[in-house]
Amino acid sequence: MKESLPHMKKPSKPLEEETLSTESIFQGKVVSLQIDKVRLPDGKTATREIIRHPGAVAVLAIKEDRIILVDQYRQPMGRCELEIPAGKLEPGEDPMEAAKRELVEETGYTCGRLELLHSFYTSPGFADEVIHLYVAHDLQEGDAAPDEDEFVELLELTMEEALEAISQGRISDAKTLMAVYAWKLNKLTGEFRV
Amino acid sequence: MKESLPHMKKPSKPLEEETLSTESIFQGKVVSLQIDKVRLPDGKTATREIIRHPGAVAVLAIKEDRIILVDQYRQPMGRCELEIPAGKLEPGEDPMEAAKRELVEETGYTCGRLELLHSFYTSPGFADEVIHLYVAHDLQEGDAAPDEDEFVELLELTMEEALEAISQGRISDAKTLMAVYAWKLNKLTGEFRV
Repeated sequence: MKESLPHMKKPSKPLEEETLSTESIFQGKVVSLQIDKVRLPDGKTATREIIRHPGAVAVLAIKEDRIILVDQYRQPMGRCELEIPAGKLEPGEDPMEAAKRELVEETGYTCGRLELLHSFYTSPGFADEVIHLYVAHDLQEGDAAPDEDEFVELLELTMEEALEAISQGRISDAKTLMAVYAWKLNKLTGEFRV
Repeated sequence: MKESLPHMKKPSKPLEEETLSTESIFQGKVVSLQIDKVRLPDGKTATREIIRHPGAVAVLAIKEDRIILVDQYRQPMGRCELEIPAGKLEPGEDPMEAAKRELVEETGYTCGRLELLHSFYTSPGFADEVIHLYVAHDLQEGDAAPDEDEFVELLELTMEEALEAISQGRISDAKTLMAVYAWKLNKLTGEFRV
């Protein structure tokens, strides 16, 4: 560890907010919403609208030089979209087990080793959702078994097709774009991780 | 346009959901929350918890081979994080103008041309937030002028330092990771876009 790197230093001015109160607004099946009152570094107060989410997993799986995607309807977008296999964490579930579960449920593929690429916040300004993004190795085909209220269709695209899907807006979410970047990097350097 | 590409075809089975009703739960300063009742492709019904968000912009800016980042406290995470300059769209605001505004407000840098890299959904399962991610060209230094309730500190990291910040979890959000992937790709190929 190089303590001298600038990002290791403490900020030259205080940045932290102090939580003064938390009001629970909504508890749903997937998300909950709370409003925090905070004290800013200058002593003033402000409110923060915060979505709590259980977290999710996503899987970058390449089979015979094609990326495995699922087509699915997304109600917030009001249309279908192509995404890498993904899903919410069940309570107490290990992220790697969840990734294996989502991959087989949505696509039928089972895998050997899973390699954690990144765990990242999707939208740290208002949500605490973290996605654990894995690369799946040693894929084996099988039968998909999606959840009862989940309707998905498996697609396997070459890099060229995936890039066209991006340009057409058929791939348009953060985790899937990041996965395509990681795949491209792997083609160039042999590594998936930046 | 190659109509024969698999991702251009209609799904072999229906995937779309029909909105039956929308209940507004909360209208905040930043997000709103609604519950939609939908009819699934098999005729059954389900509910969807949906966050509406005005959208945001983010800027990948490289100055003398260093990425421009801001350190800021994120209440949903309960800690500080390094992110590329970013912010919410004002009502009716053009995303490119918003990107220029956020860059100068948070970092003091002005820029010439802005190149749209991707517009992407951060979390399409429950939110309609879209981030428009730009690459800034022709940077000029100046004075930062953050919003009144925004406390940020400018940092400029080399690729090596950025990668260490990722491994330490100091960079841990989707847009900033995607920006580092795009920067790495640019070093390898001359292109920022995958």
